[in-house]
Amino acid sequence: MAYDYVPYLAEVEKELRDILATREPAAAPLYQMMQYHLGWLDERFQPRLAPGGKRVRPLICLLVCEAVGGDWHRAVPGACAIELIHNFSLLHDDIEDRSETRRHRPTAWKLWGIPQGINTGDAMWAISLLAMLRLRGRGFSAEDVLRAITQLDEACVELCIGQYLDLHFESVDSVPLAAYERMIAGKTAALLAASAAVGAVLGGVDNAVVETYAGFGREFGLAFQIMDDILGVWGDPAATGKSAASDILTKKKALPALYALHWEQEHGYSDLAALYARPTLAESDVPHALALLERAGAREHTRQQALLHRQLILNYLEATQMSHPAQDALRELALSMIERSA
Amino acid sequence: MAYDYVPYLAEVEKELRDILATREPAAAPLYQMMQYHLGWLDERFQPRLAPGGKRVRPLICLLVCEAVGGDWHRAVPGACAIELIHNFSLLHDDIEDRSETRRHRPTAWKLWGIPQGINTGDAMWAISLLAMLRLRGRGFSAEDVLRAITQLDEACVELCIGQYLDLHFESVDSVPLAAYERMIAGKTAALLAASAAVGAVLGGVDNAVVETYAGFGREFGLAFQIMDDILGVWGDPAATGKSAASDILTKKKALPALYALHWEQEHGYSDLAALYARPTLAESDVPHALALLERAGAREHTRQQALLHRQLILNYLEATQMSHPAQDALRELALSMIERSA
Repeated sequence: MAYDYVPYLAEVEKELRDILATREPAAAPLYQMMQYHLGWLDERFQPRLAPGGKRVRPLICLLVCEAVGGDWHRAVPGACAIELIHNFSLLHDDIEDRSETRRHRPTAWKLWGIPQGINTGDAMWAISLLAMLRLRGRGFSAEDVLRAITQLDEACVELCIGQYLDLHFESVDSVPLAAYERMIAGKTAALLAASAAVGAVLGGVDNAVVETYAGFGREFGLAFQIMDDILGVWGDPAATGKSAASDILTKKKALPALYALHWEQEHGYSDLAALYARPTLAESDVPHALALLERAGAREHTRQQALLHRQLILNYLEATQMSHPAQDALRELALSMIERSA
Repeated sequence: MAYDYVPYLAEVEKELRDILATREPAAAPLYQMMQYHLGWLDERFQPRLAPGGKRVRPLICLLVCEAVGGDWHRAVPGACAIELIHNFSLLHDDIEDRSETRRHRPTAWKLWGIPQGINTGDAMWAISLLAMLRLRGRGFSAEDVLRAITQLDEACVELCIGQYLDLHFESVDSVPLAAYERMIAGKTAALLAASAAVGAVLGGVDNAVVETYAGFGREFGLAFQIMDDILGVWGDPAATGKSAASDILTKKKALPALYALHWEQEHGYSDLAALYARPTLAESDVPHALALLERAGAREHTRQQALLHRQLILNYLEATQMSHPAQDALRELALSMIERSA
């Protein structure tokens, strides 16, 4: 039988709503813009019932806490802090990428402008730390709260480094594979590593075990991102909801294309490089581009990379030597997310 | 003889440079953009000697720490964290206000674009918290580090509320005086309150004394802002470096104009309201606007408000019952800053 995540998700949602409750009428719209972003309000600030995000990071945090023998109920504010950091970064990324929709709705900056969009993200960050500070009132020692804050804040620095690189890549012709790996380590893997690490800290284990769970989270993030890169090229449009080979049409500097460009340079070809040097690509260019990726072995290489990180997920979980239904749930959650088709 | 602030400023600058030292070559430009903003590099990332900001907030933090009997040297990372929060907010404010210059140089977003500008501010915030966490290594208890973090983070929420209101005021016709006071309490006074409060926490005193110093910092912030409002209308252009009555020309919703508009409404006039309803004002409108402010008693009211907050600064300092040369320096610093002419 599948593990029941509902109790965790319900407590996270309840705590998040309490953390983000409007404090004073004068500042109500600031809080309401955050509540909109999280999926609780519509754009006229009326309650809506549609679900928000998947809350993967809080779930990982709480499952790790339980797997190491901790009381996950007490850790809920820490899980919420992580979710708020994730969402602060989405609010700012949407501005930086000029994304006009998220989860099928207009983004916050699109509705209320870039200045309020930036400030709403900042407010969510500040409130995320207040959420962490709630842990002191749930019986955690000051030392453990500081350990949790340290894990999360170091991930925030990594997020910014990853985002710096991602923005920088847009303005350069070629991106070395190592630079791409550094980018996704910061932008995707660091916060998932911190989600697991904070759960371990709040479960009361020592730093060696914390670091092992951080390794699990990091590998999960890398595997997840590489699967995302695969789906961006070879995903089924019916499942992903995007056009076929959308990453080719947008010439996205993701792993398959970067690997193929690198392979061409090593082997004295420049066909894909020539294609990607064009200002835009059309649907009719896609079959040719796919054939070039195939010739370079990009599909096989990317798949092997995903499998490598998948194996490392299992190795890290094994290395924790924890045996608990929550540990099994953690494995199940991670594998199901990287084996998704959309 | 004037108090010598140089030793404090020198240690703050040394620690700031260590906190913001580039960690890895791949992310060097991210750190260099922060170093540019702080005045250490030019726009081609070459060292420059010109001074950065005045570092008022770290100075207040360290003087309070010393005044209550603490060792200010150990508190330096906390003072740096506050300065970094102040500068993160400037990086984002410059984008939100579309300000193209700061301290006579192009703003970061103007040089490197809005996306990198937002992300550079985010990175500075994340690093500010790492600076706070350094305090643990300087012999402060985990409990006291958490108290300092709490003071600073609550001020960050206030900053965002203040900025939300300030941005909101741009899009509305009339701003009640109470809303204006709420805005400056968040945008200007909260971080100065936290500067003093963090200094008191790191000086080892109990919460009652911490709150008294926070009151001093808050009143200093309010007095400073109101003086700024006065200079924006009646300041000497030769001293301020701005055009005469610059706040009138930009129809800025600062205290003198808001008070006069409020007074007109109470007394059945609408002359200033009519003037401010025009799309733009010219130099030739200034004498008429100044006469309307005078009729409403706006100059006298604003001056009285500044004097009120100036008196409260002295009252709070008195209430701390501290007697130390650093306490005298604190009073001298605050009074000199609110009695400035530019």
